[in-house]
Amino acid sequence: MNTLFNQPLKVVNAGLQSFASNIQKVGGDVIALAWQPPALGNINAGMDLASLLRHPLVEQANNIAMERYLNAQPVLVDVMYASEAIPEMSERKCILHSGPPISWENMCGPVKGAIVGAMLFEGWATSHEEAECKVLTGEIHLEPCHHYHAVGPMAGIISPSMPLWVIENKTNGQRSFSNFNEGLGKVLRFGANNEEVLNRLFWMRDELAPALKAAVRQLGELELKPLMAQALHMGDEVHNRNAAATGLLTKRLLPALLACHLPLENVQRVVAFITGNDHFFLNLSMAACKAMMDAAANVPFSSIVTVMARNGVNFGIRLSGTGERWFQAPANAVEGLFFPSYGVDDAAADLGDSAITETAGVGGFAMASSPAIVKFVGGTPADATNNSRRMQSITVGRNPAFTLPALNFAPTAAGIDVRKVVDRGILPVINTGIAHKQAGVGQIGAGITTAPMPCFVDAITALAEAVSKGEKQ
Amino acid sequence: MNTLFNQPLKVVNAGLQSFASNIQKVGGDVIALAWQPPALGNINAGMDLASLLRHPLVEQANNIAMERYLNAQPVLVDVMYASEAIPEMSERKCILHSGPPISWENMCGPVKGAIVGAMLFEGWATSHEEAECKVLTGEIHLEPCHHYHAVGPMAGIISPSMPLWVIENKTNGQRSFSNFNEGLGKVLRFGANNEEVLNRLFWMRDELAPALKAAVRQLGELELKPLMAQALHMGDEVHNRNAAATGLLTKRLLPALLACHLPLENVQRVVAFITGNDHFFLNLSMAACKAMMDAAANVPFSSIVTVMARNGVNFGIRLSGTGERWFQAPANAVEGLFFPSYGVDDAAADLGDSAITETAGVGGFAMASSPAIVKFVGGTPADATNNSRRMQSITVGRNPAFTLPALNFAPTAAGIDVRKVVDRGILPVINTGIAHKQAGVGQIGAGITTAPMPCFVDAITALAEAVSKGEKQ
Repeated sequence: MNTLFNQPLKVVNAGLQSFASNIQKVGGDVIALAWQPPALGNINAGMDLASLLRHPLVEQANNIAMERYLNAQPVLVDVMYASEAIPEMSERKCILHSGPPISWENMCGPVKGAIVGAMLFEGWATSHEEAECKVLTGEIHLEPCHHYHAVGPMAGIISPSMPLWVIENKTNGQRSFSNFNEGLGKVLRFGANNEEVLNRLFWMRDELAPALKAAVRQLGELELKPLMAQALHMGDEVHNRNAAATGLLTKRLLPALLACHLPLENVQRVVAFITGNDHFFLNLSMAACKAMMDAAANVPFSSIVTVMARNGVNFGIRLSGTGERWFQAPANAVEGLFFPSYGVDDAAADLGDSAITETAGVGGFAMASSPAIVKFVGGTPADATNNSRRMQSITVGRNPAFTLPALNFAPTAAGIDVRKVVDRGILPVINTGIAHKQAGVGQIGAGITTAPMPCFVDAITALAEAVSKGEKQ
Repeated sequence: MNTLFNQPLKVVNAGLQSFASNIQKVGGDVIALAWQPPALGNINAGMDLASLLRHPLVEQANNIAMERYLNAQPVLVDVMYASEAIPEMSERKCILHSGPPISWENMCGPVKGAIVGAMLFEGWATSHEEAECKVLTGEIHLEPCHHYHAVGPMAGIISPSMPLWVIENKTNGQRSFSNFNEGLGKVLRFGANNEEVLNRLFWMRDELAPALKAAVRQLGELELKPLMAQALHMGDEVHNRNAAATGLLTKRLLPALLACHLPLENVQRVVAFITGNDHFFLNLSMAACKAMMDAAANVPFSSIVTVMARNGVNFGIRLSGTGERWFQAPANAVEGLFFPSYGVDDAAADLGDSAITETAGVGGFAMASSPAIVKFVGGTPADATNNSRRMQSITVGRNPAFTLPALNFAPTAAGIDVRKVVDRGILPVINTGIAHKQAGVGQIGAGITTAPMPCFVDAITALAEAVSKGEKQ
């Protein structure tokens, strides 16, 4: 004891800063940890969390959900118009958007702009005013993509005449969908809706979609997990960087497309469109991730997060064990790199269904595979590696289908456990594009954000309630 | 002093192992370093080396050579038959091979097989016996590719009717060449020469070459350094791994090919061939590297290595300051991973001109960019990173055009300095394929090898002589 107290003391303080300050005032040497109690210090949620930790019902459910996620085999099987793929959309005039449900009044600029664009595209309106009026009178129905096994990047708008990628999970036969990527510049998903945007959408509907449908039919089914796994070894994280994956897709699709005997000019335009857009694979990556997470959904008592999505105002999550219920909180800001002449004041809030990639263990969770992504979203390759490592502490397990060369081929962290997020205060990291807050300006940057803690805390409470009921049965 | 000798002693021994053994025998704790004197302990070469270190003539020459290497802008400008691109080849029946000069009698199996194949392809012989007879009587001339600004992987055979990639260094107008990659399996470059191999060569001459010539003309000039730099950010090291680079090339070439209005069946076969071979870009990478190193060649007194190449028996190097002179030594063995049912006894010695990639700072020097390469050549991602770091100690500088994400975007080590190799005893590391020693079996593995030290020691002596003469002028 004498030896101990004769040495200079170093104090580590976890908790209130004032404890540290007092010691520092009298000349002590203190390291203050940025610690805070679990569940944002909410005592009831903390008790709920405590009731769920190591709970056998939850553990068992997570094993089942994780196994279903790991066993999912998402395969590209077809290209269909939304009205065919999702018949409910034709029964009433329906437009799907990204993120959790939200009313027109509360929507952000880019999403409103994109909905107007989709109505002009469908011929449901001829002006912005008419479009807005029809939405407000309830003639047009707005619903989340996720309510129909679909996902869309940024505004995520899907209207009945738009073509969709059709992905089937071969393990359970369940289908998932995503729209086609329009490329960069003035595009609907960032809220642009001028003639250029509409003409591109018409062309995608009339020429691109039939060509890709024919190519997919010619190719037969295309397994997406091996393709994504290969792209992870080629510098993609298949969310914000899809250059390699797009190349790998092109390599498979083009020979099939050439075998379809379409007019050469048609083929040339399709090839120019695909090879001109390094993000073309993103929507397929998202739909594949949606298929994997849908496989894990609806396992009673499971604490695995099956959806993370943003509507430009709120961030929403769903848990496997609480089914279709959304838990929402205002979206966090995106820290990132802005394109020249733009800054944080120009940015819309975090937007889009693309966080389904992180939900499935890629994107930000697989950043270590993509050191070059930091040139796009900011930071250093070491940050990228650290993000992938940190995510391992909030997941149920890892996915051996997706390995990270920079971490000596370690599998990605996967199966976000809402209990671990709330207990450890570590939020899922998300790579994302940044939209301008005004409709139609487009992408103004890219960066890294996190899911907001309150939705995880709310989810804990709901899950604890469900588990408590389950115990009594 | 008392304190020092009262502590348990740990001895570090650099040099003769017997010093360490003696201490160990009496119970001492010794770390024996694997040190050896520079220049393989050759005293004369060691004195030559000493005369060259920090020599102003050499330093000045290296600055010039390095600048020319860094400023090289290799651009794909054309596809031509060897007889057009290298007119000397038509004047007499000439076949080019990889590595330093070697007589038919001394050649290894795969190179002999490939030469016979080229003669069958050219119609210069109808049987192996006839081919061998014509070579032995001197009717056919065998010369290294490097004597004509050309490079070829493995056997590296180029005969007059074969199509070549034509690369131009836009900085000095100098052209360099490489043949087309045939893919894997039974191929000429591994010494196969059966009907399947010849039919593929006929098709490459008659359909692939005209199509690619038309596509390159349609595309205009294609800068290769930016494409290689991008591939280094996508998991390639552009020697043993070219999957991303081939994808990036395809993305540029295919739209141009489609715009050439060739018959659809022709385009389909060309596309199937290119998209079916992840090594297709290798030969372009090699020719681009050749252009960069040719730019640095022939600077009097420069100690920069401008060629490393293997003929299946000897490893040869050339220095900038000693012009066209070859320095040769028996090739080292390749340590690597063998395909099932093959082993080290089946392997041919290190073979091919592809070490031009390492000479130019990519390949093994850029392994840190390609952690996934270790799945192909053996080792761990950490080995790959260490190789890239270690090469920094034997080069004149670095190449900011080629950066390595895993090393926080550090530029690759480039401009091998023969003085540093000999002084530090660190050999250039080379990623390479492994050929079966019998003609025609093909590739049986891939791995890592090093250039043999004696050729660097010989080069030191020759350079010292040149510098000594230079001093007297």
